[in-house]
Amino acid sequence: MSLGEFDLIETFFWRRPGQGPHRAVVGNGDDCAVIAPAPGMQLAVSTDTMVEGRHFLSTVSPARLGHKALAVNLSDLAACGAAPLAFTLALTLPRVDEAWLKGFAKGLLDLADEHDCELIGGDTTAGPLAIGITVMGEVPAGQALLRSGAQVGDDLWVSGHPGEARLALDAFRGSLHPGLGTEAFEATRLAMERPDPRVALGVGLRGLATSAIDVSDGLLGDLGHVLRRSRVGVALSLDELPVSPWLAARSPDERLNCILAGGDDYELLFTAPPAQRERVTQLGAELGLVLSRIGQIEAEPGLRLWRGASAGASEGRQAVPNRWASFDHFKGAA
Amino acid sequence: MSLGEFDLIETFFWRRPGQGPHRAVVGNGDDCAVIAPAPGMQLAVSTDTMVEGRHFLSTVSPARLGHKALAVNLSDLAACGAAPLAFTLALTLPRVDEAWLKGFAKGLLDLADEHDCELIGGDTTAGPLAIGITVMGEVPAGQALLRSGAQVGDDLWVSGHPGEARLALDAFRGSLHPGLGTEAFEATRLAMERPDPRVALGVGLRGLATSAIDVSDGLLGDLGHVLRRSRVGVALSLDELPVSPWLAARSPDERLNCILAGGDDYELLFTAPPAQRERVTQLGAELGLVLSRIGQIEAEPGLRLWRGASAGASEGRQAVPNRWASFDHFKGAA
Repeated sequence: MSLGEFDLIETFFWRRPGQGPHRAVVGNGDDCAVIAPAPGMQLAVSTDTMVEGRHFLSTVSPARLGHKALAVNLSDLAACGAAPLAFTLALTLPRVDEAWLKGFAKGLLDLADEHDCELIGGDTTAGPLAIGITVMGEVPAGQALLRSGAQVGDDLWVSGHPGEARLALDAFRGSLHPGLGTEAFEATRLAMERPDPRVALGVGLRGLATSAIDVSDGLLGDLGHVLRRSRVGVALSLDELPVSPWLAARSPDERLNCILAGGDDYELLFTAPPAQRERVTQLGAELGLVLSRIGQIEAEPGLRLWRGASAGASEGRQAVPNRWASFDHFKGAA
Repeated sequence: MSLGEFDLIETFFWRRPGQGPHRAVVGNGDDCAVIAPAPGMQLAVSTDTMVEGRHFLSTVSPARLGHKALAVNLSDLAACGAAPLAFTLALTLPRVDEAWLKGFAKGLLDLADEHDCELIGGDTTAGPLAIGITVMGEVPAGQALLRSGAQVGDDLWVSGHPGEARLALDAFRGSLHPGLGTEAFEATRLAMERPDPRVALGVGLRGLATSAIDVSDGLLGDLGHVLRRSRVGVALSLDELPVSPWLAARSPDERLNCILAGGDDYELLFTAPPAQRERVTQLGAELGLVLSRIGQIEAEPGLRLWRGASAGASEGRQAVPNRWASFDHFKGAA
């Protein structure tokens, strides 16, 4: 990198006005950054790489890309009930473009500031556009929300409105007939390009939820991970799925496909005992977040989809075959 | 990734016989891994990405590449005096090649096991070959070795024989006249492709060294970071530089260029008070590592090179102009 390019990176990422290292004991610029989790806290760590053409379209604005690159990592912390602490950034860039860098840094660091998550180290390399982030958070010892904790009889909950990101992606791909109107396109595109990680929900669910995962590969696919890890099954009520106004306007098939197999949603899917229903509902109200009770954990392994009865009720319900392949879809390792 | 490809990654990286998670409270496979630094310890974090063609040649064996990808990160921990704890791996692969993956995983995980550094998370993506590692280590609170601690009067030390990696690189580039013999080529190639991170030295220097950095950009370039951060200068004796047998056989110009401006060495450059000379020498003997005292920290900023007198002595010494540009070379950001 030339001196001028180096200066641009320094300016946008490391020398922000009014910002000094606050979480790091030793900040960026030494061989390592040094951080200290609070006494009694354990460190939750997650890593995600986003590659152009695979994880994002070249049409995305740099600010939204910066936001999303951190958001998907914060979402992993949320799914563990961990509060964000710090992150490292490995940036591979085809060229150093001032306007791009400025926008990317703004999207990234605005979200970082919102969650008090400090950029403590990084590395910039020439090459095809890719963004690698490793995020660190803290969670009280033994209180991390795991995929393996779902218990028979637990309610299954999901936050927000999964499926919007997939609807936008289908619109980009030109595979929607009829297509989306401008308003629906912009709204669902925002869900795809600028997801809100459910950090406050994850922290609020400590001691309340028995298991949690974030919906990145599609609701049924991610639910599958919880069922396998917890060695349980589920009865899921299609009638209780939260349907966003944009999805309500689509055909029933398209709607269910987006909600159940869409992915890229970064909502939380979690289980909690029925005794906690009131507290979960109250938490959702406090956070201004729709939390929907969509099923119940059962002892018999596997996934059973139902219509015609609310979650947990067995009277009057009709089985629906699972036509959504992502239930057996494996994540890109690790 | 197909199921078979997923299985290969699982087999080589995550399901090793006789290996279970030991450092991680929650291992790979949940949304986050969870680790717990010991009480009183702070966490040192460093991240490095290696991209084909830029950080390594396509001729390198996968095992050596796996070794080096982790080694350069462990070297950053060493330069902070931190003991390795855990790391995450972000692998971008053009294709899933079983033989390559097997070799890469072996080189990587053998070095990880040697330093008891657990692979706790990762992510595999399709794309041009790149390896991103974030390493975490622990260091007693307040004892991290920083670039900013060098004091006037301190000795300047360097471990091992810097310059060999550069000699091998020049041989690969075909810019050596005469070329290297087979034995010299294989030996220096090993230094370039399979560096030994000085982890035990870094830990041993806690409370002994006042500052430390690892030599990745060239001795003078990295020394410059220490001088600027510590706001001091240095008198460096060219006569005291450690010269490996392979470099001794080259012309004086080539020799000095490799040692002073070579880079990619991953030796430690550190400062310590003269009162610690005996303990530093003893540490080197215990570790079977050559430690050379090559200069002295002075109050006047800048770098002064000398010949004809040992480090610290001013009688009979002759100034040598600095012809090695890397002194003002900036690292690839952050």
